[in-house]
Amino acid sequence: MKQNELLVKAAVDSWHLTIANADKLLDTLSDDDLAKEIAPGRNRGLYLLGHLAAVHDRMIPLLNFGTRMHPELDNTFLTQPDKAVDFLPATHELRAYWKEINDTLATRINSLTPEEWLQRHTSVSEEDFAKEPHRNRFNVLVGRTNHLANHYGQMLLLKK
Amino acid sequence: MKQNELLVKAAVDSWHLTIANADKLLDTLSDDDLAKEIAPGRNRGLYLLGHLAAVHDRMIPLLNFGTRMHPELDNTFLTQPDKAVDFLPATHELRAYWKEINDTLATRINSLTPEEWLQRHTSVSEEDFAKEPHRNRFNVLVGRTNHLANHYGQMLLLKK
Repeated sequence: MKQNELLVKAAVDSWHLTIANADKLLDTLSDDDLAKEIAPGRNRGLYLLGHLAAVHDRMIPLLNFGTRMHPELDNTFLTQPDKAVDFLPATHELRAYWKEINDTLATRINSLTPEEWLQRHTSVSEEDFAKEPHRNRFNVLVGRTNHLANHYGQMLLLKK
Repeated sequence: MKQNELLVKAAVDSWHLTIANADKLLDTLSDDDLAKEIAPGRNRGLYLLGHLAAVHDRMIPLLNFGTRMHPELDNTFLTQPDKAVDFLPATHELRAYWKEINDTLATRINSLTPEEWLQRHTSVSEEDFAKEPHRNRFNVLVGRTNHLANHYGQMLLLKK
């Protein structure tokens, strides 16, 4: 393995591991568990699940992997805080979106070369990217893995 | 910047950003806030602070940066769960250790070349490392950043 491949592998492995941990946790949590707040007055588990699904769905176009699958999640799970929207998707639907979105990402994440990871992400212009080459796809992967770990730590509190 | 330098930069920046976020949070939390549980029956803020300090302290020898500074933290904050040990360091001491340990790490983290990041960490033997080159320092950095993000997400619940 080349140097840059080993560096990429560390971050890609960390993404997959964090997703696998979240999946394992979600398997142990019932829909009733997910309807509970992670701490008194804080976000409910299902809000965090929807929030993570929305953020990961947005990674599809951000990483230039294609069109996102569930833009309808943004209003409920990104723009507004928990409990601001009365009608939420059913928890089994959120679970299915979560899996579908992550599976789509996984296929592409596993196929990129180091050179492709260092290409710009789509929210930076070619002009700005020429001056700021760190605004690349790899940076998005690393940042989103941290975002997931942050909320995974919170969702762990739903475990009995 | 070379390819492997850009890949390293993404992970190093993410480490520093997560530390900075935790520092900012700790500045807003009083010692009384840190004495509270993050959720009913769960770890207290000061346990998580001591736990993170111990894990980061262990990174010093693990990354081959030298001798660790506070091995005495392990018994209270790693080996045993919260509330198992009666005598805890004062919260202002834990805050000082946290800063001291992270400052020591930062100096070395900022100075490593990509080649040095891909050297083995000290808990893998040379023999095993020859077969498993992904067990390198960079992998430790990425994993520990995630660990920090996980507990940072939990400590955020102490914010009013």
